[in-house]
Amino acid sequence: MILDLSADGVALTEALVDIESVSLDEESIADAVEAALREIGHLEVTRIGNSLVARTMLGRGERVVIAGHLDTVPVNGNLPCRNDGTFLHGLGTCDMKGGVAVALRLAAGVSEPNRDVTYVFYECEEIEAVHNGLRKIAEGRPDLVEADFAILMEPSDAIVEAGCQGTLRIDVRTRGERAHSARSWKGVNAIHGAAEVLRRLNEYDARRPVIDGLEYHEGLNAVWISGGVAGNVLPDEAVVTVNYRFAPDRSEAEALDHVREVFDGFEVTLTDSAPGALPGLDVPAAKAFVESVGGEVKPKFGWTDVARFSGLGIPAVNFGPGDPSLAHKQEEHVPISQIVRCEQVLRNWLGA
Amino acid sequence: MILDLSADGVALTEALVDIESVSLDEESIADAVEAALREIGHLEVTRIGNSLVARTMLGRGERVVIAGHLDTVPVNGNLPCRNDGTFLHGLGTCDMKGGVAVALRLAAGVSEPNRDVTYVFYECEEIEAVHNGLRKIAEGRPDLVEADFAILMEPSDAIVEAGCQGTLRIDVRTRGERAHSARSWKGVNAIHGAAEVLRRLNEYDARRPVIDGLEYHEGLNAVWISGGVAGNVLPDEAVVTVNYRFAPDRSEAEALDHVREVFDGFEVTLTDSAPGALPGLDVPAAKAFVESVGGEVKPKFGWTDVARFSGLGIPAVNFGPGDPSLAHKQEEHVPISQIVRCEQVLRNWLGA
Repeated sequence: MILDLSADGVALTEALVDIESVSLDEESIADAVEAALREIGHLEVTRIGNSLVARTMLGRGERVVIAGHLDTVPVNGNLPCRNDGTFLHGLGTCDMKGGVAVALRLAAGVSEPNRDVTYVFYECEEIEAVHNGLRKIAEGRPDLVEADFAILMEPSDAIVEAGCQGTLRIDVRTRGERAHSARSWKGVNAIHGAAEVLRRLNEYDARRPVIDGLEYHEGLNAVWISGGVAGNVLPDEAVVTVNYRFAPDRSEAEALDHVREVFDGFEVTLTDSAPGALPGLDVPAAKAFVESVGGEVKPKFGWTDVARFSGLGIPAVNFGPGDPSLAHKQEEHVPISQIVRCEQVLRNWLGA
Repeated sequence: MILDLSADGVALTEALVDIESVSLDEESIADAVEAALREIGHLEVTRIGNSLVARTMLGRGERVVIAGHLDTVPVNGNLPCRNDGTFLHGLGTCDMKGGVAVALRLAAGVSEPNRDVTYVFYECEEIEAVHNGLRKIAEGRPDLVEADFAILMEPSDAIVEAGCQGTLRIDVRTRGERAHSARSWKGVNAIHGAAEVLRRLNEYDARRPVIDGLEYHEGLNAVWISGGVAGNVLPDEAVVTVNYRFAPDRSEAEALDHVREVFDGFEVTLTDSAPGALPGLDVPAAKAFVESVGGEVKPKFGWTDVARFSGLGIPAVNFGPGDPSLAHKQEEHVPISQIVRCEQVLRNWLGA
């Protein structure tokens, strides 16, 4: 597969979508992207696993990262790509090969940007963090991602979405005592005990803190519930898995303390946690970028790798084509106009 | 395998336990029981599948059934049989090879009972009713189980347990609307909706009706709960599987009406149902049996095939060695003294 970076961004998105690249199966797409990048004279290219870093080395006073992941969630009868003239439809159109196409077009087409650019195309964003390509680069070759500012091309409707909310998952466990359901007074039903857990979830009042002028919106939700031994047995255990999405003014530790307090009296086990990222819009590079896109900024509710940049001390925002609420949906699609707009905005910002 | 019916009931129980006979795998035990029955001159023997019917044909004025199932729940590291001098331990000791041994001893040893006896040894009691050997005999050869009264040798601590409670299972379903958990206000969480289902279960006041002087005890319990799509998605469905154990003064239809009323406003689907059986202690044959065991009678809380006899118009009771609450447990066991007692009581009753 040879990618034509001189074609327009829409055709390039279609070509990328048609290279199937479910997480952990990204070798083909990484090969294609690598081959295309190595053709570009003004970039220094490094491959790590199925991730690629391509840098301009112009000695500018400022360096920015433009990043996107190459993987998608599993195929769901939504390949190949379909172009209806207004939207591209198909797996990865929205999350996030439209953004990857824009970044590749900039990499090839903007040979003398006004700030040095580090393009990062990475693997395994959609699965457990241990596989995440950006994490691997940052840990193995931190020099490759040093920068003053980062733009993550996650879908954001071509508007700057700043910061991101953190996320943690806990198992809230209730205990009981088994008994035959024909003699239920001899046992204690752990599922019935979960009533109080669900009651607290229903009564929970989610915070909506304003940070740097942006209103975040927290949420506390059961995402799984399970319990049961047999059709004639009172269960001795039930588990409610709760996902807390917390605004970036709370640390992971504070968020965990909070949910432990909400479920006081129950057995709470942390199973997963990732920090939020503050908007960081007071940094000069971020300010300049927001100005160049017209000043509109929204808060990012979902968790993205923006938090990973934030953890490296690099302020970062989300800015990419596509409606974020379509990500991971069977019917995901991206407006062609947003692919065009994102490329145009970034070209201008890079002084091309 | 040759069963020695002249050995004592304890040795015979041990021999039966050591013939593995998990439901649907009862050919060996049925072969052994058939061979032993065919040696007995005073019985007319019929085999249907892996079930056996053996009848005295003495022309007595009354006929009684003495029945037990040959199958067990799956092996759970609890074979072979172990005799510690007080108890027999192992799969099927309690449920219900002790009872089967007693019935086989009576079949061989009581050649001229004062009432005609139909011994039934049947397959597949522990699994779906479609496989149940007693059901197959009753439907295919109803003449073989015609009787005035039936004793089912299910474990009952060697005390008469009369009637049985009915059982039904329903799925109570809540619906919602999926959304990403980072933007939870865009959806409706179906697990949170199950709080009200669990609240009603917690507040439920179970009936304890007295029928023929016996106090039954109902129960309404969640036996399973499930819901969840992904760790970052608000689930659009949750299901609470509820088991209602109802006293035999309620029909299956009345029981279903009742639970529909309890869960009014929710989607309720019936998944399983079996009727209870009234004690039926006013029938002469039943009265005579209760008198011969000393008059003590308790209500049966669990469902047994007593209800099947009841459905055929044959009053029936449970009477067998073993603590019913040990049935299906890894550590099931049976007191040797109860095997001896049950055989003695029944011998006396049959005039031997």
